[in-house]
Amino acid sequence: MAIRTERCIKLRGMGSFHVGGEPKSLQGKPLMQATLAVGGVPVTMDPNGDYVIGQMYAQYFLGGDGRRPPILFWHGGGLTGACWETTPDDRRGWVEDFLLDGWDIYLCDAVERGRSGYAPIPDVWPAPISQTAASLFVRFRIGHAETNTTLENLAGHAFPGSQFPARQFTQFMRQVVPRWSHTDEQIMAAYHALLRRIGRRSIIVCHSQGGMFGLRSAMEAPDAVTAVVALEPASVPLEKARQLGYSTPTLIVLGDYIDTDTRWPRIRDRIMQFAAEFPCVQVLSLPEIGIKGNSHMLMMDKNNMEISGKVRDWLYGMAGADSARP
Amino acid sequence: MAIRTERCIKLRGMGSFHVGGEPKSLQGKPLMQATLAVGGVPVTMDPNGDYVIGQMYAQYFLGGDGRRPPILFWHGGGLTGACWETTPDDRRGWVEDFLLDGWDIYLCDAVERGRSGYAPIPDVWPAPISQTAASLFVRFRIGHAETNTTLENLAGHAFPGSQFPARQFTQFMRQVVPRWSHTDEQIMAAYHALLRRIGRRSIIVCHSQGGMFGLRSAMEAPDAVTAVVALEPASVPLEKARQLGYSTPTLIVLGDYIDTDTRWPRIRDRIMQFAAEFPCVQVLSLPEIGIKGNSHMLMMDKNNMEISGKVRDWLYGMAGADSARP
Repeated sequence: MAIRTERCIKLRGMGSFHVGGEPKSLQGKPLMQATLAVGGVPVTMDPNGDYVIGQMYAQYFLGGDGRRPPILFWHGGGLTGACWETTPDDRRGWVEDFLLDGWDIYLCDAVERGRSGYAPIPDVWPAPISQTAASLFVRFRIGHAETNTTLENLAGHAFPGSQFPARQFTQFMRQVVPRWSHTDEQIMAAYHALLRRIGRRSIIVCHSQGGMFGLRSAMEAPDAVTAVVALEPASVPLEKARQLGYSTPTLIVLGDYIDTDTRWPRIRDRIMQFAAEFPCVQVLSLPEIGIKGNSHMLMMDKNNMEISGKVRDWLYGMAGADSARP
Repeated sequence: MAIRTERCIKLRGMGSFHVGGEPKSLQGKPLMQATLAVGGVPVTMDPNGDYVIGQMYAQYFLGGDGRRPPILFWHGGGLTGACWETTPDDRRGWVEDFLLDGWDIYLCDAVERGRSGYAPIPDVWPAPISQTAASLFVRFRIGHAETNTTLENLAGHAFPGSQFPARQFTQFMRQVVPRWSHTDEQIMAAYHALLRRIGRRSIIVCHSQGGMFGLRSAMEAPDAVTAVVALEPASVPLEKARQLGYSTPTLIVLGDYIDTDTRWPRIRDRIMQFAAEFPCVQVLSLPEIGIKGNSHMLMMDKNNMEISGKVRDWLYGMAGADSARP
């Protein structure tokens, strides 16, 4: 059954739209025959013609009074906006939490994923990357597992003290979607289109792969971005910051178990270098303030409400949003 | 900019979950190398291992007091739940409309699409079907066009009097996602899992390809379904109804221009036969009551609020929901 909130959520508006993308024409392909529903009438399909590719879906929930900057939730690789909603073990997610706190929310599916869709045009895009349950379990720092560990056995491999709801890892896998590794510029272009469409200085709350896009947006369109909260960004655009300069108030949040990982110590080094060169960047390492056990999926860990509280404390405290404190 | 509603939407809960699907194991494939973000650290990816396929995403907005049956919005082929939200020309969609009228809503993305995702496992699923802008323009009965009519010229080919916002057809194309033609049973299984999870007798409002699934659900799980509203179902499960019997109150809504189409006269014949054999089935042909110009995409046509009003009139009037009239 659906979860119920303790408090009523009031929205002054909600809806969705797609932004960005461009027409793409296909020529010279053979005809196809298909029946589109059991019992339906067969149709001949000609794949030659026009499509739109590279667009992005954004769903909005206006939970504030319109005076605070809106918050844009940008998910990570292989995921969709769903990762910011109810957690895999059916606890409240950040979307609901921020709405109850009176913010306007834009929940995005990056280009090629989720309700953004992609045009299945032959030869235009290569095959997506396959990500197994065991590989994500390890890469998202939920625990150690061999690559051949089966789905049903993964929960038993969680780190002692892990905040991830590991018993619901199969449920988490249900929200994993295909990803590609060649679409960064299309994704970035669509995020810029989103910022133009919203037309208000926005706060970007981004995660993992989305962290790179959030930080780049603030560098490439500084007038459109009030602040960036990057949860475990998969990388930081250090060279771009040196080239363009960077002064957007930025909070980078890091979870636990980084020293046990093959990739994250190097990513953290880049993040610390970024913070050392740009005083607007603050790093919040959760274990260093006594918050232990967080995985890469901070927004769905068991203490996700404690972390969203830390993020909001920072948002309320930073210059520019202070006047909006409720 | 985002649209604003005239009235505040009050929700006693919101969130999302995934249901259904099953683990799928892949073996014997070669390793892959990929960099998952520009500037990121390269990772070796082993596609062999476990995935979950066949799951479905449902997003819920509890706009009622919990006494009326919830409404489940099931979209058509090549689309996602987004089709029930804001229209391509930025008017209010049915989700918002029904929430303002005090209903609980479950907005679904069928298996393989949208936030349901699909596991990109080599050799498990064939390539999706390509649907060009011109083919959808014709199949959705917006107007006549040659298969080589370009995207920018399509709007000029709309039927005189068409209710579809044809000038925004490019915007509509942004919400089209890949579709497959072999996944009906997986989709159906996930819809049954949804009905079990919701655990309340539900009203299914379904469209096109989704019409078949809505009607089948009511036949296969009659205790879970209070009523079906099928907007232009792509087919009706007549043989199944004869086999299992059918007594669920059902409204089938048809738009205009059916006689100009190559497929729809035959689909309508089946629908009329279904209604003739099963008295619980009522057909509402919009042109016959003087509502002209509707395309296949009734929920986003310019008169979409008039049609949602007709649907609600029927819902309020049918046995079982009458007591819930506000």
